[in-house]
Amino acid sequence: MSEAEIARDFVRVLKSVLGDAQTQVPLHAPFFPGKEKAYLQDCLDSTFVSSVGQYVDRFERLIEEYTGAPHAVAVVNGTAALHAALVLAGVGPGDEVILPALTFVATANAVSYCGSVPHFADSDRLTLGLDPLRLGKHLEAVVEMRDGQPFNSETQRRIAAVVPVHVFGHSVDMDLLLEVCGSYGIPIVEDAAESLGTFYKGRHTGRLGLLGTLSFNGNKIITTGGGGAILTEDAELARRARHLTTTAKLPHAWKYEHDQVGFNYRMPNINAALGCGQMESLEQFVNNKRRLAERYCRAFGEIEGLECYVEPEFSESNYWLNAVLLNRASGDTLSSVRALRNKIIGSCADAGYMLRPVWNLLPTLPMYQDCPRMNLDCAQNLEARLLCLPSGPGLLAD
Amino acid sequence: MSEAEIARDFVRVLKSVLGDAQTQVPLHAPFFPGKEKAYLQDCLDSTFVSSVGQYVDRFERLIEEYTGAPHAVAVVNGTAALHAALVLAGVGPGDEVILPALTFVATANAVSYCGSVPHFADSDRLTLGLDPLRLGKHLEAVVEMRDGQPFNSETQRRIAAVVPVHVFGHSVDMDLLLEVCGSYGIPIVEDAAESLGTFYKGRHTGRLGLLGTLSFNGNKIITTGGGGAILTEDAELARRARHLTTTAKLPHAWKYEHDQVGFNYRMPNINAALGCGQMESLEQFVNNKRRLAERYCRAFGEIEGLECYVEPEFSESNYWLNAVLLNRASGDTLSSVRALRNKIIGSCADAGYMLRPVWNLLPTLPMYQDCPRMNLDCAQNLEARLLCLPSGPGLLAD
Ligand SMILES: Cc1ncc(COP(=O)(O)O)c(C=O)c1O
Ligand SMILES: Cc1ncc(COP(=O)(O)O)c(C=O)c1O
Repeated sequence: MSEAEIARDFVRVLKSVLGDAQTQVPLHAPFFPGKEKAYLQDCLDSTFVSSVGQYVDRFERLIEEYTGAPHAVAVVNGTAALHAALVLAGVGPGDEVILPALTFVATANAVSYCGSVPHFADSDRLTLGLDPLRLGKHLEAVVEMRDGQPFNSETQRRIAAVVPVHVFGHSVDMDLLLEVCGSYGIPIVEDAAESLGTFYKGRHTGRLGLLGTLSFNGNKIITTGGGGAILTEDAELARRARHLTTTAKLPHAWKYEHDQVGFNYRMPNINAALGCGQMESLEQFVNNKRRLAERYCRAFGEIEGLECYVEPEFSESNYWLNAVLLNRASGDTLSSVRALRNKIIGSCADAGYMLRPVWNLLPTLPMYQDCPRMNLDCAQNLEARLLCLPSGPGLLAD
Repeated sequence: MSEAEIARDFVRVLKSVLGDAQTQVPLHAPFFPGKEKAYLQDCLDSTFVSSVGQYVDRFERLIEEYTGAPHAVAVVNGTAALHAALVLAGVGPGDEVILPALTFVATANAVSYCGSVPHFADSDRLTLGLDPLRLGKHLEAVVEMRDGQPFNSETQRRIAAVVPVHVFGHSVDMDLLLEVCGSYGIPIVEDAAESLGTFYKGRHTGRLGLLGTLSFNGNKIITTGGGGAILTEDAELARRARHLTTTAKLPHAWKYEHDQVGFNYRMPNINAALGCGQMESLEQFVNNKRRLAERYCRAFGEIEGLECYVEPEFSESNYWLNAVLLNRASGDTLSSVRALRNKIIGSCADAGYMLRPVWNLLPTLPMYQDCPRMNLDCAQNLEARLLCLPSGPGLLAD
């Protein structure tokens, strides 16, 4: 088949799943089928719209109930959640933090905010996330223990944390990763920005490392406009997270005492009000997305060389973003696959369906070019071949 | 008069201005008399609740119109605005930044986020903000020019910026400050968090330095839940501010290219929708506050030893927070004044009126204890003597 034929087939299949595109079908539009408006009005009536308010507390409790995490701390966005979580995990200036090359730039930026350096790891074809086995081999080759602390023997920097990302809402194999990191005593901070609603062997993602972080950006499974949360099992870490994200102010009726360099990272009440409405629909959104994934898989199964990405057996995924892999011919080059990918994106856009490639690998960006990395073959392959499909939570809503 | 008598008088005067406190009169509650609810509903209906949306653009244009600044960039809060503005002004790791000892901790924290060190300056009794003349003398004593750059000869650090704060909405004497800083080539970033609605010799505060920043926190003259803005006269700085605060993403329909370590600092559309409603009432809020200031002054004028703080002649102030100074007896000590202050706060709280002292001086906080500073006599005096009065924009609304 020619590129043009594949692109035409692609449009046909999208039409069969999503119906005719009246207006542009976006990649992921928010959906507000519940009490969002009523909560926003009530929030205004209370005059508590800022970082103190009942909706913030309620939103945190709803997140805790849903995820099973004993502690959730709501913050302004997923990037802020990651930054604070890294600080709490002990990451500091001059350290090195391992994260996948294939993730949104915020994961690496949060590491930079700590004054530390990203160290890029390869992806796993099975999960799209960090590959624990290959990371294990890499660490064996580069880590040197000094005073009980793992150092990168090539850069002389301490390896202070590993940040797995549950890409598109599919869980990394956390048991394997915990084993690998545990043997060096490296703490794990999970970037679960995309995986609210995803469970690894029955446990919610973001609850398997020392700390986990969520995002409620406009393109996530639920949204608060902008928002994020820190999850932890540890009451003391939760207390410190709350403290660090509210300018480190000591509790007092009217004194202004702050005991460390803190952040203004707490979620405003008005954003939390929106979040409370959204949380009431989360189960429905996960169901819609899983249903959509099934339909995509059935429909794309017809096209030769296309492979629908399916959750690994240990992950009950939220299918935040549905994706297909372009496996075209066996001898294809990455640049020919990228050309096909771009052709498909263009044809679908013309037909009213918004598709997206995955992120540029982070070590290709100018500010992360010189960072340490392992061999990135799998990530490079995925970067060329992945194509994201419209996946909004309201797409199959009745 | 005894402490108890003064405190009783204080309560009596508050009652005469504010009426009986049915429930607790807060220091500064938000007020939503306009179209806030309608705009929030419309924002939800549009599904654009996150960082792209028409309300963000509209809010920025409203800020530009009101302040006269050619460019306003809306961000998540005033702290983020300051951080980004400092980065844009060229502040970096190892630099030193001059700011008043008497300000909210966020001003110093933003400096810390840049990896630079706060250098604390004294206040001016006339404005409550940075004292340009005494700063000038201090700089004469400590600055050494090297390759055309001003260095602190005691710490060997470059002095990269000066951050005046328009405390409680009263303008610093900017002409004097510009002269002092200009002679060393030190850029000014104005922390105008508290002074939306305040004009210095007819020009809006935040428009006199290289960059200025606003806050729309819940306790500010208008609120977006959480929010802030960067003001600048310079189109290129505005473009860079927008870029830096939106993860430094290069514009493209679907590619993920970022060219520097950026921030997720843009204001969500839903917060901007609230802000558009609030901006329509800003003029009314300023009038209410100025009227309240007059009434306070008349009423507190009766009490001996109390001095209502009044705007300096070059400042047309928003009177964000009204304040009185406890000038008790001429021989009083700072600790006796503090004791009186605390007694008054307690009595007023019992009667249903929430008062506040000003902030603890920043060099008294553990993380800023070892920072360079000039003599802080005036700031110490103000810290003991200032008492903030309930000042919400809705207090005198009819
Ligand atoms: C993997 C990943 N990490 C971090 C983030 C950052 O979250 P936010 O946009 O809420 O700051 C996102 C989403 O944007 C993400 O997809
Ligand atoms: C002087 C001053 N600077 C900075 C800030 C920080 O603003 P925000 O709370 O919006 O981060 C505030 C207000 O809280 C302030 O009063």
